[in-house]
Amino acid sequence: MSNYNVAYLDNNATTKVAPEVVDTIRQYLADEYWNPSSMYEPALALARKLDEARRDVADALGAAYPDEIIFTSCATESNNAALFGGLRAALKADPKRRHIVTSKVEHPAIIEVCRRLEKDGYDVSWIGVGKDGQINLREFVQAIRPGETAIVSIMHANNETGVIFPIEKLSRIVKQTDRKIIFHVDATQTTTKLPINLSLDSKGNDATPGAFAYVDMLSFSGHKIHAPKGVGVLYVKRGTPFESFMVGGHQERGRRAGTENVPYIMGLARALTLEKDGLERRAAKMAAQRDRLQKALEERLSWIVVNGKGAPRTPNTLNVAVYGAEGEAILALMSDKGVCVSSGSACTSGSLEPSHVLTAMGVPAGALQGNFRFSLSRYTTDEEIDRAIEAFVESVNTIRATSSKWDSKKSEPIA
Amino acid sequence: MSNYNVAYLDNNATTKVAPEVVDTIRQYLADEYWNPSSMYEPALALARKLDEARRDVADALGAAYPDEIIFTSCATESNNAALFGGLRAALKADPKRRHIVTSKVEHPAIIEVCRRLEKDGYDVSWIGVGKDGQINLREFVQAIRPGETAIVSIMHANNETGVIFPIEKLSRIVKQTDRKIIFHVDATQTTTKLPINLSLDSKGNDATPGAFAYVDMLSFSGHKIHAPKGVGVLYVKRGTPFESFMVGGHQERGRRAGTENVPYIMGLARALTLEKDGLERRAAKMAAQRDRLQKALEERLSWIVVNGKGAPRTPNTLNVAVYGAEGEAILALMSDKGVCVSSGSACTSGSLEPSHVLTAMGVPAGALQGNFRFSLSRYTTDEEIDRAIEAFVESVNTIRATSSKWDSKKSEPIA
Repeated sequence: MSNYNVAYLDNNATTKVAPEVVDTIRQYLADEYWNPSSMYEPALALARKLDEARRDVADALGAAYPDEIIFTSCATESNNAALFGGLRAALKADPKRRHIVTSKVEHPAIIEVCRRLEKDGYDVSWIGVGKDGQINLREFVQAIRPGETAIVSIMHANNETGVIFPIEKLSRIVKQTDRKIIFHVDATQTTTKLPINLSLDSKGNDATPGAFAYVDMLSFSGHKIHAPKGVGVLYVKRGTPFESFMVGGHQERGRRAGTENVPYIMGLARALTLEKDGLERRAAKMAAQRDRLQKALEERLSWIVVNGKGAPRTPNTLNVAVYGAEGEAILALMSDKGVCVSSGSACTSGSLEPSHVLTAMGVPAGALQGNFRFSLSRYTTDEEIDRAIEAFVESVNTIRATSSKWDSKKSEPIA
Repeated sequence: MSNYNVAYLDNNATTKVAPEVVDTIRQYLADEYWNPSSMYEPALALARKLDEARRDVADALGAAYPDEIIFTSCATESNNAALFGGLRAALKADPKRRHIVTSKVEHPAIIEVCRRLEKDGYDVSWIGVGKDGQINLREFVQAIRPGETAIVSIMHANNETGVIFPIEKLSRIVKQTDRKIIFHVDATQTTTKLPINLSLDSKGNDATPGAFAYVDMLSFSGHKIHAPKGVGVLYVKRGTPFESFMVGGHQERGRRAGTENVPYIMGLARALTLEKDGLERRAAKMAAQRDRLQKALEERLSWIVVNGKGAPRTPNTLNVAVYGAEGEAILALMSDKGVCVSSGSACTSGSLEPSHVLTAMGVPAGALQGNFRFSLSRYTTDEEIDRAIEAFVESVNTIRATSSKWDSKKSEPIA
């Protein structure tokens, strides 16, 4: 058990490893150290177990073939591999395909890849979002260039706000415009939280959530689904142009070099299997807890805004902006009270820049200084929600009482 | 404990995870799941532990500064990052530097990177080796092009033969020719087996083994030093041109994006710390066992050749070529007897190509069909050596008795 008695509401940053997953990993670490490429019996047996894990992961995603699953070291690697590896192969087939479409609110692992591609002379269209955080559909449609666009990369749901993008519709539009365009989805924040079915034929009907029949590549990470940091998945549909990002040995059928991290791969497969059934029940429980948290904060605090409130959101995420208070000070008080939440995303905390996601949503400057992400998991307890409510209300009130940005008499921010 | 009672002599493919390392990893998996980029107390405490691990790794290598250590997912990633990331930065500083020098016997993780660079229009010089597996020094010296060479990448010791390259001398020659050339070493097979000291000033004296004062970058992997598969290190000396290979978040000071695999990093640091002292003693023990194995095979089998015998070799590696017998058949018999050795390297087994290392050494075709690598670790027991000797002698005799390539009457291969 942990030495810390905390209310952990930062599951979009990382999740607790499921005890069953810890056990699986420990077993493979201690007992099954073979290199699965070796030719003697225990190594061959281990390679077969790796095949089973690959099939389990394919099944959990509704992928048609186990060989569509590539194990990587994290979602960041999956995203790098999808864009660099997809573009390299697409260009080889057709040198005119030098254009990428993505959104302004992607994770840094997509944004930084696209910035590098821009530096290297490729053309990137950055699609904006509305005030509710939803993607600008008209802008998206107009950005697709038949015969020129190589890859479209759009996240399934945003890591900061939880806003869900209509991947079913976006991918169908892209394929109807030019079926050779590769459609990539970063599903790091939605795997096991929203339905995803990669082989369901949606027959032009985009009403079924998670019917990803038009998706060619999909990334996610172990450590957001109660497996550890250091393992990820890249799904690459058969027939999709793709060249290995990391080159060397023949592992993963030549599509990802490097000796397989067998213990973590087995752990990731176990984590997915543990969550195979009951997604709706787990999502409903998280949504109820999240909604209770949101309602309590809205009732007990003035001048706060729930970012992305008007759009469909993942069941576990609540992003609130607080006027008239510094975010860092509130975060420090919360930490003292043992409540773990984040300001912005963990991947960019450390930087002092305001969130690129909220900036793209046009959140006013006064609300950019103090924004907070509460993110739940299937382990979140009602007691943790209670602690988060009390700690947050107290902290905001404490900081506002002495803030130069807050008028305590009028109970409103100083413009 | 493992279900298999094997004699494990394939430690150049992968090693058993040290029980102490399993314990460390289990602890961090179960108790310390925080994202070290987060801003609340337990995450900040974890980030400090990560700093300590980085300092431990730097100390073990004799690196001057902890921030010279970048944690990666494996040596393959380290090698990809060193070459792609070093070249990218070198080119930015000087677009004329489009030339790479490497050897013909590197690991696939270097060879495939260089092949890709060739495809992309860069110029690669492939240095050959002599019959003893030693690098051709004259060829090496002549290949260096002042003002044009960006990177020289040479392995410390070969994974198949164990032949040690004189990195101390090679790196000094390179720096004396053009100090702006980046010198990279793949030390995957030598870390904890040979002395390595990255900050020792050798003062022009290359007689001290492991005095790597002229080395700018160095790669190695956890799973060759009794830590798990899925974690590696890239050392990048301060001031060396380098751009991140994997881009995204700000982790590893912006030089390797992706949430840190904290449990494995702590495990890797523990594995290095466990081996900090007593290197000479462990190496002497392995060398004695290896020499006994070699002597027994040479005495009891005719028509076998020890590859790399004439050159200095790592203490744990024995590569023998057997005339008049098929390698795969012998390997299958060995597997039945519970003795784990490899034919070629694990990274290229699965392919039917003869070893590129032995081919470069000019090993005759008759001896290329059956070559075997025995590789020891600090856990290797005398009993395992005994079992390997008996199993190998029996297997070779059995296969030769019915082989179309062996004349049993004359006891010699059929030409």
